Amino acid sequence: MFFASDNGARCPAPVMEALMRANEGSAMPYGNDPVTAAAADRIREVLEAPQAAVYFVATGTAANALALATLCPPYGAVFCHEGAHVQHDECGAPEFFSGAKLLPVPGDHGRMSPQALDARIRAQGTRVVHSVQPGAVTITDVTEAGTIYSPDEIAALAKVAQSHGLPVHLDGARFSNALAATGATPAELTWKAGVDALSFGGTKGGLLGAEAVVFFDPAKAWEFELRRKRGGHLFSKNRYLAAQFLGWLQGGLWLDLADHANAMAARLAKGIEQIAAASLVHPAQANIVFATLPDAAHDRLKAAGAMYYNMGEGRVRLVTSWATTEAEVDSFLQYTNG
Amino acid sequence: MFFASDNGARCPAPVMEALMRANEGSAMPYGNDPVTAAAADRIREVLEAPQAAVYFVATGTAANALALATLCPPYGAVFCHEGAHVQHDECGAPEFFSGAKLLPVPGDHGRMSPQALDARIRAQGTRVVHSVQPGAVTITDVTEAGTIYSPDEIAALAKVAQSHGLPVHLDGARFSNALAATGATPAELTWKAGVDALSFGGTKGGLLGAEAVVFFDPAKAWEFELRRKRGGHLFSKNRYLAAQFLGWLQGGLWLDLADHANAMAARLAKGIEQIAAASLVHPAQANIVFATLPDAAHDRLKAAGAMYYNMGEGRVRLVTSWATTEAEVDSFLQYTNG
Amino acid sequence: MFFASDNGARCPAPVMEALMRANEGSAMPYGNDPVTAAAADRIREVLEAPQAAVYFVATGTAANALALATLCPPYGAVFCHEGAHVQHDECGAPEFFSGAKLLPVPGDHGRMSPQALDARIRAQGTRVVHSVQPGAVTITDVTEAGTIYSPDEIAALAKVAQSHGLPVHLDGARFSNALAATGATPAELTWKAGVDALSFGGTKGGLLGAEAVVFFDPAKAWEFELRRKRGGHLFSKNRYLAAQFLGWLQGGLWLDLADHANAMAARLAKGIEQIAAASLVHPAQANIVFATLPDAAHDRLKAAGAMYYNMGEGRVRLVTSWATTEAEVDSFLQYTNG
Amino acid sequence: MFFASDNGARCPAPVMEALMRANEGSAMPYGNDPVTAAAADRIREVLEAPQAAVYFVATGTAANALALATLCPPYGAVFCHEGAHVQHDECGAPEFFSGAKLLPVPGDHGRMSPQALDARIRAQGTRVVHSVQPGAVTITDVTEAGTIYSPDEIAALAKVAQSHGLPVHLDGARFSNALAATGATPAELTWKAGVDALSFGGTKGGLLGAEAVVFFDPAKAWEFELRRKRGGHLFSKNRYLAAQFLGWLQGGLWLDLADHANAMAARLAKGIEQIAAASLVHPAQANIVFATLPDAAHDRLKAAGAMYYNMGEGRVRLVTSWATTEAEVDSFLQYTNG
Repeated sequence: MFFASDNGARCPAPVMEALMRANEGSAMPYGNDPVTAAAADRIREVLEAPQAAVYFVATGTAANALALATLCPPYGAVFCHEGAHVQHDECGAPEFFSGAKLLPVPGDHGRMSPQALDARIRAQGTRVVHSVQPGAVTITDVTEAGTIYSPDEIAALAKVAQSHGLPVHLDGARFSNALAATGATPAELTWKAGVDALSFGGTKGGLLGAEAVVFFDPAKAWEFELRRKRGGHLFSKNRYLAAQFLGWLQGGLWLDLADHANAMAARLAKGIEQIAAASLVHPAQANIVFATLPDAAHDRLKAAGAMYYNMGEGRVRLVTSWATTEAEVDSFLQYTNG
Repeated sequence: MFFASDNGARCPAPVMEALMRANEGSAMPYGNDPVTAAAADRIREVLEAPQAAVYFVATGTAANALALATLCPPYGAVFCHEGAHVQHDECGAPEFFSGAKLLPVPGDHGRMSPQALDARIRAQGTRVVHSVQPGAVTITDVTEAGTIYSPDEIAALAKVAQSHGLPVHLDGARFSNALAATGATPAELTWKAGVDALSFGGTKGGLLGAEAVVFFDPAKAWEFELRRKRGGHLFSKNRYLAAQFLGWLQGGLWLDLADHANAMAARLAKGIEQIAAASLVHPAQANIVFATLPDAAHDRLKAAGAMYYNMGEGRVRLVTSWATTEAEVDSFLQYTNG
Repeated sequence: MFFASDNGARCPAPVMEALMRANEGSAMPYGNDPVTAAAADRIREVLEAPQAAVYFVATGTAANALALATLCPPYGAVFCHEGAHVQHDECGAPEFFSGAKLLPVPGDHGRMSPQALDARIRAQGTRVVHSVQPGAVTITDVTEAGTIYSPDEIAALAKVAQSHGLPVHLDGARFSNALAATGATPAELTWKAGVDALSFGGTKGGLLGAEAVVFFDPAKAWEFELRRKRGGHLFSKNRYLAAQFLGWLQGGLWLDLADHANAMAARLAKGIEQIAAASLVHPAQANIVFATLPDAAHDRLKAAGAMYYNMGEGRVRLVTSWATTEAEVDSFLQYTNG
Repeated sequence: MFFASDNGARCPAPVMEALMRANEGSAMPYGNDPVTAAAADRIREVLEAPQAAVYFVATGTAANALALATLCPPYGAVFCHEGAHVQHDECGAPEFFSGAKLLPVPGDHGRMSPQALDARIRAQGTRVVHSVQPGAVTITDVTEAGTIYSPDEIAALAKVAQSHGLPVHLDGARFSNALAATGATPAELTWKAGVDALSFGGTKGGLLGAEAVVFFDPAKAWEFELRRKRGGHLFSKNRYLAAQFLGWLQGGLWLDLADHANAMAARLAKGIEQIAAASLVHPAQANIVFATLPDAAHDRLKAAGAMYYNMGEGRVRLVTSWATTEAEVDSFLQYTNG
């Protein structure tokens, strides 16, 4: 019963096998190798974005912070949801890399509305030297509350950003789960909706530690490369990052894994709804379930060795992954129900 | 004939196998897992440093920049050799992470003498508010010129640093090659010689992408952890970094691999010395050979598909690795000799 | 009718005269001159803090940003009121100088309650590497809403900070107005209440451009000096900063000027309260009045050339200074009343 | 006998009078006042640069650091003379504000040759992600060695910069002395020679603490304004900075003062050359004299209360100012001669 994080799961065999396959002969370092080229091409194909610049880094925090630093000047503001990962869970990395200030936008269940985003940007204003200048918008999907945006909802937020001349970043740490949940294509959820730069998460979806950063317009590609190196995030043996993506993206594996994780969360949420003493805190739309459980359930779960994030006051965060089993879910529900 | 970099080699089987072994079941993320604990313990054992704080990152640039940022204040100076990797090859990462200014110390063949280091620190002075303050000393071993320091030489440099109240960092991107070349123990080349923090390189020695940062005095451990996270260098699935070290350090493999790389470089250097038209630029003491080759040799080597770094004016850098074969070396020498 | 800002007033004659008096002969630069020493001594005397380290800078933003950078590490959080000057009106200077993240604390009328501050610090938590660490608390007095804290209220906030091990900074851009309003001594409102570092504002109180930064414990004095220089805020001809303070602090002038400014604001506030169509937005406790005025009043005031900050939706900010006259106030009220 | 620095002199009466004249009535803060507008206009007139963007700050370090941060990206290199003020005497301020790395160019007597500059830029190279990218060139005139550049020499350096696509900054902390020494017009020594941004020094030339930053192409003006504010360098009562320039620039006073300072240095240098036991270290072309004096001379000068910077090994730096008298110079020479 491991629901602590999708970061806690092991990696699927095809990913490990791709890593092994990449471990052949010599290769030019720093991304000048055929495996890196193939993985970048594959990502461009998946995104239907032949012009996009694609880079690999090892962590989601690096992907977000470097992407935002490339999009937003140091005297700029990045608008994000008040509960966003960049705001709470990256120890100030986005600010460190960009110099920018994060300005939180309120919204229920982890989601920004276009109206709230627009109001926050307007409140910040422009051309007054005393305030940081609107610089970029970052959207998280799957959100930190486990909810999702439809392509139309992303487009509506991007439209607000564009109306203020701001570029749009999508924190897709759980991009595959968002795609699986909406049924949208990668293009529909990104550049077709107005997204300029994407943190294409792989780690939470089954990789050892690999994320892609995608700029749909490659104009800032070279600046990103310099910022990545300067941030210590350029791998010399880049093929071992890229190979992970190659194995994962092959034959739709990545979406199958996300489908499974989402299904396990849905099963968990459905079960919790049927327990009188428990309730959901947010709609469970992808692979994260927030719920309130009675104290007795916590005691039983703890005794049974269940792993999950206890947020206090009875509330829990439960994250499913490609490796979560129906048996784990059912067992969790059974202990919860008492 | 691949001599472009030790970063271009594939990884040895025991490292890949350790990675596979770590891919079992669920594990708490962010380093709170038994594989990470075991690898850190193993490194403490190797270093005979039971109190040391040990952390994993994926790149040497990250290891150096984060270690220096932890040792040196933003208004400080880091003294390094004028040809050091931190000074030339990290796109300003040490300055970005630390805020400090790097002050180069001259020296032949990539090495600082205690006298030159002392003179440079004295020239910088202290307590004058107009200048950055002496903050730390960083030593590279194996040096960028392919030379090495004996434990006594490290100790002499560290003694200078200590006489000015400065902590000492060792950039050990090729730490295993330095150990193999000197025959010193890891402890002798580090804390016994006065080193405070070590970038314990693994990637150039055969890992996919893993370095350990070691603080022999754990007083600044928590600060380092925060800086690592804030730099986007904390892996969620940390076990896959740590496992690489476990495989590599087992049964002395890491030193055997380094021995082999050094032997290949010695064979290469010896061969070059016997070619009338070629000559060594620096003493080849570890796994890097700098040489001057005649134009005709370059033409032949290029035609034969040899990969190496051409520095201009006939000079080349040739790096051997655990995967370099005698046949490659001999073939290179044959083409060079014409 | 100038109510745009206390920054818009000219400077009182004794300040200009002190500047002239300082303009005699040669003096060692960078603060090593007798005028600087005398002014620092005078400030220590005023604050009853003989051990305090006292420095001069030219702007309030510099004073705050440099003080906070000295108190808070780059991976730290600075807790401030949600409407604080550091949060809204310094274009990210505190973050730029410190690297820290500002975390806003809610509160009516520009004031933090000890409960709200404590709750916000607790919510941030500590020892979790994913979040910035509680680093410092900054209190603004006079607040941005024109309200004040009593010495007991400052002490209560400082006690909360201390209970979490955090140092306390007081943004005293209008320190003299706060003192005049409370009747407290400078010591009572600062170190006796638990304040560690003070931005002792002079500019808004009548100086050309001079602020003192005071550390009651001089342990971090040298670090501050380095940060000041590195920030370009060390004046070579420091005596011209210090002299302003000497003239201003002489014979209680500074408090007399603040008394006058406060009295003018009180007269203005009282008048507004007596106008049916107008109302106060915040209690006017020092030299700033926030009010809602009818549209017709705005039209009349604008036509008459009144200068003030129109915040939209009928709301205005009116700031009085040592140079504000009763006639200006009465005239403003007359136009407002129609 | 005050030769410690031109920063140690008092300020000339017309500057103080201009300050007094500016101290009339109310004025909109933050540079939106007529005195600031008039001073900026006057500077544009002096520079024959009607389109230039002109800003005021209080220190030379701020002027240089903010100008360079506006010209050079954080992953860039600023090429400067190895003895430049930005490299040695600003405690890392240029790096702090810009994020860039300073790369020193060697050259005798404080001067870079076009060949040396070109060679250093070429050595750095471009498009290799491991190194900081050439970003800007900064020239100091009067140099730190007291020598000067002719307009043609500035133009030759600027041509090198332009050939690499780099903008040119002129650190004119002693701009008036350089103009007085060369007889060139302000335009000839700046934009006509290819300078993009100028730190137009006032403080060393007689102001209390005021420098202008000039961008001949105003495209980056708004970015500079934001960086100035974010650096805490925007004065609220900006008129008191601007007024200093108005008084100083009136009727050619600034150049007369510089002429006098230069003449005093020439007198000093000439005298030293005639003393057998003393010698000049650099040609004395403006208002700074570097000389070697015998120990006995130091003893006599010290006993007589002479103030100057003793650099060790008998070497001294002697700086003259508008306030230096012939009597001071002659007295210094007399004590030196023994």
